[in-house]
Amino acid sequence: MGVLLVVCDGMADRPVVELGRRTPLQVAETPNMDKLAEVGSCGIMDPVAPGIPPGSDVANMALLGYDPYEHYAGRGALEALGAGLELGPGDVAFRCNFATVDASGVVLDRRAGRISTEKASVLAEAIREALEKADFGVEVEFVNTVQHRAVLVLRGEGLSKAISDTDPKVVGKPIKECVPLEDTAEARRTAEVVNRLTAFFREVLSSHPLNKELPKPANAILMRGAGSLPELKPLGELYGIRGACISAVALIKGVCRAAGLEVLDVPGATGSYDTDLGAKFSKAIWALGNGYDFVFLHIKATDVASHDHAVDKKVWFIGEVDKALGGALEALSLDEDYVVLTADHTTSLRTGQHEGDPVPLAIAGPEARPDGVERFDEISCSLGCLCRLRGVDLMPILMNLLGKVRRFGA
Amino acid sequence: MGVLLVVCDGMADRPVVELGRRTPLQVAETPNMDKLAEVGSCGIMDPVAPGIPPGSDVANMALLGYDPYEHYAGRGALEALGAGLELGPGDVAFRCNFATVDASGVVLDRRAGRISTEKASVLAEAIREALEKADFGVEVEFVNTVQHRAVLVLRGEGLSKAISDTDPKVVGKPIKECVPLEDTAEARRTAEVVNRLTAFFREVLSSHPLNKELPKPANAILMRGAGSLPELKPLGELYGIRGACISAVALIKGVCRAAGLEVLDVPGATGSYDTDLGAKFSKAIWALGNGYDFVFLHIKATDVASHDHAVDKKVWFIGEVDKALGGALEALSLDEDYVVLTADHTTSLRTGQHEGDPVPLAIAGPEARPDGVERFDEISCSLGCLCRLRGVDLMPILMNLLGKVRRFGA
Repeated sequence: MGVLLVVCDGMADRPVVELGRRTPLQVAETPNMDKLAEVGSCGIMDPVAPGIPPGSDVANMALLGYDPYEHYAGRGALEALGAGLELGPGDVAFRCNFATVDASGVVLDRRAGRISTEKASVLAEAIREALEKADFGVEVEFVNTVQHRAVLVLRGEGLSKAISDTDPKVVGKPIKECVPLEDTAEARRTAEVVNRLTAFFREVLSSHPLNKELPKPANAILMRGAGSLPELKPLGELYGIRGACISAVALIKGVCRAAGLEVLDVPGATGSYDTDLGAKFSKAIWALGNGYDFVFLHIKATDVASHDHAVDKKVWFIGEVDKALGGALEALSLDEDYVVLTADHTTSLRTGQHEGDPVPLAIAGPEARPDGVERFDEISCSLGCLCRLRGVDLMPILMNLLGKVRRFGA
Repeated sequence: MGVLLVVCDGMADRPVVELGRRTPLQVAETPNMDKLAEVGSCGIMDPVAPGIPPGSDVANMALLGYDPYEHYAGRGALEALGAGLELGPGDVAFRCNFATVDASGVVLDRRAGRISTEKASVLAEAIREALEKADFGVEVEFVNTVQHRAVLVLRGEGLSKAISDTDPKVVGKPIKECVPLEDTAEARRTAEVVNRLTAFFREVLSSHPLNKELPKPANAILMRGAGSLPELKPLGELYGIRGACISAVALIKGVCRAAGLEVLDVPGATGSYDTDLGAKFSKAIWALGNGYDFVFLHIKATDVASHDHAVDKKVWFIGEVDKALGGALEALSLDEDYVVLTADHTTSLRTGQHEGDPVPLAIAGPEARPDGVERFDEISCSLGCLCRLRGVDLMPILMNLLGKVRRFGA
């Protein structure tokens, strides 16, 4: 007996004028999602709290049972995850800026004239090449993201995020020395590495030919927001389960890894419309048959469609997800396993943004109480027997169905 | 105007295969429960939190309005209160079993062959006599309750409940040494007293003539669940009400006493299938007519049936409760008093365990808002106008209907 939790990113929506004031889920052809609703328990769920639009990191942390108000550990680490860098426990990540400094290190522009992403990529590549020949006693990874923004990750034993920023936050002041914020060897060592890196970056960047051409040369890297992966008690420890994650998105993989799930790679999973949904569901079914009690299957493109204001594409892609789900329902037995369907948040086709509206939820499987709900959408599910839940309640409910929640009291 | 709150222990269930995937409440003949649902407000309730299986102590504490995450202090103390022992702040109480051990202290039977209450009373009396001549530096009180069950209370200064159990929980293992669970003089001292008492009890019991006759001599006392009195502000003080409890179960009586309810004795209330349901309801009706604003009526055997995996018996007994409820509804007027029906938790006929699924709730009476719900069961009630509540919300809702909740704000 296991649980397959299918999370379609941003699948929930508001009524859309072009769809006759119905939501994409109300319009799409979804016989298999509807079957889940029909045989299972339905409800709606506020991923974090009513009216609060969650980021994907926060929403999926909540769906995995961790209260983000308690566990959210800042952007440094999650931005690194979002930039596609992998983070392990103990790694320390920073948000960085390319900046312009004078010869004495005084900051003239904190964003190097908002250098273009293309030019920043050239400089970042130069940094990576130089890093390959250097030795800081730890592994150093540097990736630029958009314009002047970048991410730095230090990997290895004996690091600490308890160190200060080098970014002075204002122009006219010198790059700050990084100092340990606690009296530990780890913090002292990490601060020392950061200071050596700051000098190293200035050296590499100052001599780069590209910077000779720029009115505001990107000749320094400012670092701030040192962070580690949030310290979550792994789901395996909390519930005695073995769990897996199937997702194409670095940020989601990062959250799942932080929760102690094993990330299973699926060739063809792209995080876009062309993702191989069949391959993802097949991998999930394989996992349930091979020692995993819990599989978190994340599908991204529903969210992409809303961010792109692509009404027809969202309706179409929901139909594609439904077909892939149908294949899975043929291969699985709901007398044996639970199949759970939801979204991590509402993404509005009109605003193109994450919104704080609740999402539909269906839990089907051997001992889910069936209610009268026959359609999987935001309205139909709100009439189901689960009523209205919060995201953090989902995991205890699912683990309770598996008999994995310890009794509280006698 | 008063409230009769009927709590049927573990009455809620999951869909049961033998019942065509319906729950016992969906199958049982319950015209009177259904009438409550029809004229009243319905909903579902998570006794503690979604997905969390509560013990009976924790669940009923929540139903009485006390957040168990804040107030729960171990079962020993509640059972001691239920057994009629007085507990002061700082006293430490234990749940005990008469057990059979071999010469080396290995447990052969954790319940001494389920020794009769009569015989256990003789042995408990011998223990009390011996205790009078002994000195453990603290006051020791020992009382047997039903069959092999007993309660031990240590009174005095400098005690701690942060100590381990002596009950190994399985046969074939020796009585465990009690060890302190925190590094304090109080915990060390209490553990030492417990270990001395364990040896003392074995000595007194081994030499008792009654034990020579028994095939499974009750020659040891196993202790577990060390706890202190939860410090609950009494309901009388919180709401200005006079409340009563009717239950055959020591633990429930203990919770109710801790909440400031008066325990009313009902001859014939057994906590089993043969309990005199009519007598219990009659006593409740009497109480409502004689100065009590709130009567907590607890019925145990619904839970017993699930623990025994007795599908037909659970369905049958729910019908018996319904008949007794019918009698009460004839004697009471819902224009005058509120009658409230719920369960303290779900107990699954399949697993035989408490589960974290929500329970149905119906509140009928002069000013409860009637919704369209016509049946009292887990699914029908989920469609009612109370939606989904938590156990701790119930008392404020009921006391509000009585006009007993102080306004918050101007």
